[in-house]
Amino acid sequence: MSGRQRHEPTVEEFVEGIRGGNRHLLSRAITLVESSRPEHERLAHQILDRCLGSERTSIRVGVTGSPGAGKSTFIEALGLHLTDAGKRVAVLAIDPSSSRSKGSILGDKSRMEKLAARPEAFIRPTATSGFLGGAAPRTHETILLCEAAGYEVIIVETVGVGQSEIVVNSMVDFILLLMLPGSGDELQGIKRGIMEIADAIAINKADGDRRRIAEISKGDFESALRLLPEKHPGWERKVLLTSALEGAGIGEVWENIEAFAAAMRRSGEWREQRREQLRHLLHAIAEERLKREFYNAPAVKAAKAQVEQQVVVGSLSPFTGALKLLEAFRGK
Amino acid sequence: MSGRQRHEPTVEEFVEGIRGGNRHLLSRAITLVESSRPEHERLAHQILDRCLGSERTSIRVGVTGSPGAGKSTFIEALGLHLTDAGKRVAVLAIDPSSSRSKGSILGDKSRMEKLAARPEAFIRPTATSGFLGGAAPRTHETILLCEAAGYEVIIVETVGVGQSEIVVNSMVDFILLLMLPGSGDELQGIKRGIMEIADAIAINKADGDRRRIAEISKGDFESALRLLPEKHPGWERKVLLTSALEGAGIGEVWENIEAFAAAMRRSGEWREQRREQLRHLLHAIAEERLKREFYNAPAVKAAKAQVEQQVVVGSLSPFTGALKLLEAFRGK
Repeated sequence: MSGRQRHEPTVEEFVEGIRGGNRHLLSRAITLVESSRPEHERLAHQILDRCLGSERTSIRVGVTGSPGAGKSTFIEALGLHLTDAGKRVAVLAIDPSSSRSKGSILGDKSRMEKLAARPEAFIRPTATSGFLGGAAPRTHETILLCEAAGYEVIIVETVGVGQSEIVVNSMVDFILLLMLPGSGDELQGIKRGIMEIADAIAINKADGDRRRIAEISKGDFESALRLLPEKHPGWERKVLLTSALEGAGIGEVWENIEAFAAAMRRSGEWREQRREQLRHLLHAIAEERLKREFYNAPAVKAAKAQVEQQVVVGSLSPFTGALKLLEAFRGK
Repeated sequence: MSGRQRHEPTVEEFVEGIRGGNRHLLSRAITLVESSRPEHERLAHQILDRCLGSERTSIRVGVTGSPGAGKSTFIEALGLHLTDAGKRVAVLAIDPSSSRSKGSILGDKSRMEKLAARPEAFIRPTATSGFLGGAAPRTHETILLCEAAGYEVIIVETVGVGQSEIVVNSMVDFILLLMLPGSGDELQGIKRGIMEIADAIAINKADGDRRRIAEISKGDFESALRLLPEKHPGWERKVLLTSALEGAGIGEVWENIEAFAAAMRRSGEWREQRREQLRHLLHAIAEERLKREFYNAPAVKAAKAQVEQQVVVGSLSPFTGALKLLEAFRGK
């Protein structure tokens, strides 16, 4: 077909490779998913179409927290705990780069080298430059590919800046909020919206001198959680103490996640949430394509320059201008 | 016309009233702008169409900062400073309510009572429940109405959570970031994306014991700003010390804003930025209406339930499902 490059595997080769655990083909498929080129998108969707509906079960865990909360170290510790138990783990990092400098907020983050060395682990950072102001990254599609490749736990890392958490909430099963012992009031203030979407809070770096402060913080967070509206009826959000450095509390976090999965599966909410997420993805894709068709329509392209010019000089209002563009799209 | 309620003023009455400084009609027009009812939107756009293109000049200032930075008190002090100088000031507050509880992050915020009592001031809070995850508020349109009503300085207050700053950056001339003396490293980490869109930083509450810490913070922020990419070539971003409580530094902030306006007007960037903002508004409105037309199209409505059902049970992928919805929209 047009658009396929030489040596590019066929859809069948991609699908077979991914299902067979071929990490190289999985990586290449994710690159296609993240590409903005229409021919890549077409191929990506053909692959995704065939990868969906596998019977494999997975748990998707979102891990969020502000820079400095130790997310990378925590995720590596959790990943090692799980691979030790024989589970296959994929780690996806959403890294919302600053919209102006295109630089990473995280800076020189840990690369999870120990976990990366494990054959049961797959680690994929996702650069999402301009995400705050622009398009969402393709994390949901990447999750689907990793599940088709047989990864049983998908960990999605986000920086706690608000918007990315809301997005992640629409694609994972469980959200863990990492906090630091004794974080100041201001930081907590900014975190309130994020606290509300957490299914558990882990106070990380609860080691050495910080252990006692962490225990006080635990009580504070437990009180705060009680004041927030329920996220899932019948699920009591816990505050756990962890030290990724010492490996303490990691097992308890995983037990909490498994208890959550069991409770949600019993109540039927698990299936309901996954269904709602697919519905969300359906609409997100439809809206994105709609917008693209709009701006690519010859009539809109033809009208756009003149309408923009009239709007910016003030001879046409943006409201009337928008109507003109829509009329052009409808072919009137 | 259909959709107009009894006793609703005509478009002409609205426009004359707004231009004549009638605060009641201005408020009613903003309510129309914020309404999601199509007949209100139609009327609002007719009013806005007629209000645009006035020759009045204005300065639009965005004020951002985390909860606790003293934004309300600062804005009231700045507003009083300006009304004392005979200027007419409008204050619009974007309050991104939490997406789950619909509750305000700010809680019981100061109501700017002194400023509200001034006949030269107009204060309008904007509830934007679900903004983080949903539609943008109508702040840009509200700014245009306030300008038609003769307000010379428009102050837009936002909470420093990331997304709302990016939105505000697309509608104001100048962004002031309020910080606290000696704010911790973590908070600064989260603020980096927001620091990049600031045209000046004010370290607020620089009074009493905090004065000395504030002076150290000033140096830190100045260094940090030098590391960030330029926002406007030829404009050196300043770090100022203010105490809204004592009224200190407020005049200096305003002088800085006026110096910015003068420099940008000289270089032509002022006009360019305003034009770019109108272009942005044009596209935002067009995209929103496009989306609405899509979901309201009878063929899409007819196909939607079945496509959604097939997607959530896994018999159709979201990618193919989206294509089916788009085909329905195109009438295929």
